[in-house]
Amino acid sequence: MALVVQKYGGTSVGDLERIKNVARRALAARARGDQVVLVVSAMSGETNRLLKLVSGLTERPNEREQDVVVATGEQVSIGLVAIAIEALGGKAQSFMGHQVRIQTDSTYSKARILSVDARPIFDVLKKGAIAVVAGFQGVDQHGNTTTLGRGGSDTTGVAIAAALGATCEIYTDVDGVYTTDPNVCPQARKLDRISYEEMLELASLGAKVLQLRSVEIAMKYKVPLWVKSSFTDDPGTLVTQEDTSMEDIVVSGIALDRNDARVSIRNVPDRPGVAATLFGALDEKAISVDLIVQNTPTNGATDLTFTVGKADLVKAGDVIAKVGKQLGAGAVETDSDVAKVSIVGVGMRNHSGVAARMFRTLSAQGVNILAISTSEIRVSCLIAAKHSEAAVRALHSEFGLDAKPSNASKAKAPRGTVGSAHQAGKSGRARK
Amino acid sequence: MALVVQKYGGTSVGDLERIKNVARRALAARARGDQVVLVVSAMSGETNRLLKLVSGLTERPNEREQDVVVATGEQVSIGLVAIAIEALGGKAQSFMGHQVRIQTDSTYSKARILSVDARPIFDVLKKGAIAVVAGFQGVDQHGNTTTLGRGGSDTTGVAIAAALGATCEIYTDVDGVYTTDPNVCPQARKLDRISYEEMLELASLGAKVLQLRSVEIAMKYKVPLWVKSSFTDDPGTLVTQEDTSMEDIVVSGIALDRNDARVSIRNVPDRPGVAATLFGALDEKAISVDLIVQNTPTNGATDLTFTVGKADLVKAGDVIAKVGKQLGAGAVETDSDVAKVSIVGVGMRNHSGVAARMFRTLSAQGVNILAISTSEIRVSCLIAAKHSEAAVRALHSEFGLDAKPSNASKAKAPRGTVGSAHQAGKSGRARK
Repeated sequence: MALVVQKYGGTSVGDLERIKNVARRALAARARGDQVVLVVSAMSGETNRLLKLVSGLTERPNEREQDVVVATGEQVSIGLVAIAIEALGGKAQSFMGHQVRIQTDSTYSKARILSVDARPIFDVLKKGAIAVVAGFQGVDQHGNTTTLGRGGSDTTGVAIAAALGATCEIYTDVDGVYTTDPNVCPQARKLDRISYEEMLELASLGAKVLQLRSVEIAMKYKVPLWVKSSFTDDPGTLVTQEDTSMEDIVVSGIALDRNDARVSIRNVPDRPGVAATLFGALDEKAISVDLIVQNTPTNGATDLTFTVGKADLVKAGDVIAKVGKQLGAGAVETDSDVAKVSIVGVGMRNHSGVAARMFRTLSAQGVNILAISTSEIRVSCLIAAKHSEAAVRALHSEFGLDAKPSNASKAKAPRGTVGSAHQAGKSGRARK
Repeated sequence: MALVVQKYGGTSVGDLERIKNVARRALAARARGDQVVLVVSAMSGETNRLLKLVSGLTERPNEREQDVVVATGEQVSIGLVAIAIEALGGKAQSFMGHQVRIQTDSTYSKARILSVDARPIFDVLKKGAIAVVAGFQGVDQHGNTTTLGRGGSDTTGVAIAAALGATCEIYTDVDGVYTTDPNVCPQARKLDRISYEEMLELASLGAKVLQLRSVEIAMKYKVPLWVKSSFTDDPGTLVTQEDTSMEDIVVSGIALDRNDARVSIRNVPDRPGVAATLFGALDEKAISVDLIVQNTPTNGATDLTFTVGKADLVKAGDVIAKVGKQLGAGAVETDSDVAKVSIVGVGMRNHSGVAARMFRTLSAQGVNILAISTSEIRVSCLIAAKHSEAAVRALHSEFGLDAKPSNASKAKAPRGTVGSAHQAGKSGRARK
């Protein structure tokens, strides 16, 4: 008898038929002898409907009260799912964030979970019932309702699984984590397993499959995390601890992020505090910076390149031109026709020359590299946007990720898989 | 500096413009130096939308979970109203039922308020902010969300006013309590004052202005209760304690209830327990009975007449025919073309002959009385439906309620005033 947390996203509870489908799936797991906790999101479109009501009143809503409004989406879902389970002859009880005591800090609209009180859930499970918990919402120490940010229901699911010592299954409209976006690369292949570290890198690169924070919590508490489709019976992808077999695979996934734009500033004087002044000025304007590259200075000056979200490009260019002038720096260049292609894999730790192999592959395609940044298990290159799809396909092939012809899953083109970072880039953007 | 609870119904917060209007009204009261607590309902149509989602899943939803779903309507409203107040430069904080600790019993969908913890509201008022409380919802002793039944926000408003020692203003789409339904009787006149007892009788007769339970609580805790329009500056009607000036007025209002149907059973044997058997059988089928009339028996048998909701008439007729046969009673008659016209007034206590005057008035109109029931401050007559409007107008004139020609309010025809009992009859129907 397993203890399992099943998290269903907005499309999985998007209408009454789909809600009944979720109820049937939960009851099927119950019938197999599992103890089942459901975590559900708002019905698709509902959060946007609520935010539209808020923005119809003011552009700068009180954030505490906005959370009061948007948290209702998940509350409707838990009640409906519990009703659907009971209507099918099962037993269910819903919980809002304050009822399970999903304790968060008070950062409205992007609160962080501090603790979860699993006791009320255990009480319900002991009675043979299914617990249905509202995703996305929590309560701060003063009893105020908070929300966890877009994709926050993933984090709720993993946090509850951690508190219960359970497995967490994230049900979505794709059937797992892919080596790259199948819309860009038809050879993309569904992964059976991926390590937490790799998933973290991919999530921070804008993969829409999982919220970054949920992967962090899963890694911290070693929660076995499955990514599955709520519409098929595919086993999905297991996100789990790294093991030796994973190290044999040099690159597990390739991400493509098209949300970035480049800013370069020439001849920046090489003095202490210059970078702090430049990036401090951007921070003041709430502009998030991602990749930063600075070369070793020659003749007491250096060139500096960084990326910002496309929407912030004009603002960032203005700020840097102004501050650069004060610092005595040279020309400022901006370019929004760029993309960031990244290879990710824990195997890089034990294989030398991976970065060089990436650069060679890009070079062979005639792709010029505008900037490079690396981590222990990732290499990212900023390139011209026009080369991005060819670059992904070449790297996918070079690192042996192409699906075998017999693999049926390659024919599918699910939305929102690894590397498809449209709209989602902000979630993984570091604030520096 | 007054302490005032303003309750706004669904039409008063029906769209974003109206929500801004509520915010402006609250801030105007604040600017006059009042301490202001708002109690708001769900946006009009919202509760029905949520109930439709529930009924799309099953005809017999789990009641706990249904309350979880429908309570969200008010939660959206409080957040939006608080956001609107803050956007206008004011300070506001919203409260859900569990946050003010509106403690109720566990009767889901029609819970009764047991207590209110006014401290969190006082804390917010002390900071100069406006407290915005969700109507309709509460929390039981186990922390489950409950709802108070249709019109429950009135009860929330009055209960909070009682806990705070405040005045309660009920804002609605009519500008007060009328002597009778202006749609039936153009001479209907808005009342400046009415006693709790009279309002109770009128509410139990199906007047849609106030929920019965809210008047009970206002009477118990002597809460000064104003009925006002949220769209005009009319002072409205004050529901308050009876005083000597009220006793001079024999009849304060005339109610017309068209929801009832009549069942009569002839020659019922005059034995102990017969009435208990008949009405027990109706209760088993969850049929609510209103007026009951039994004459003094002659020859060991009597005729019995009672009224039920029109929707229950066929079912009630079947039950009574069956039970009547077992008891050896005579024929059963049913009639849905009836209406109940009632006169209400605390002055009746000190004026003799009021009932006789009512009967004479009806008789002069050629109206036959099918059944009569009275309380200390009310006389109700069941009559043929076709006579109902003429009866109301004749009684309105007879008891001196007609508006003076100079009174401008007579020209209005607001919906849902006293005596307009369409759709609302159930709320005031006694369960016997």
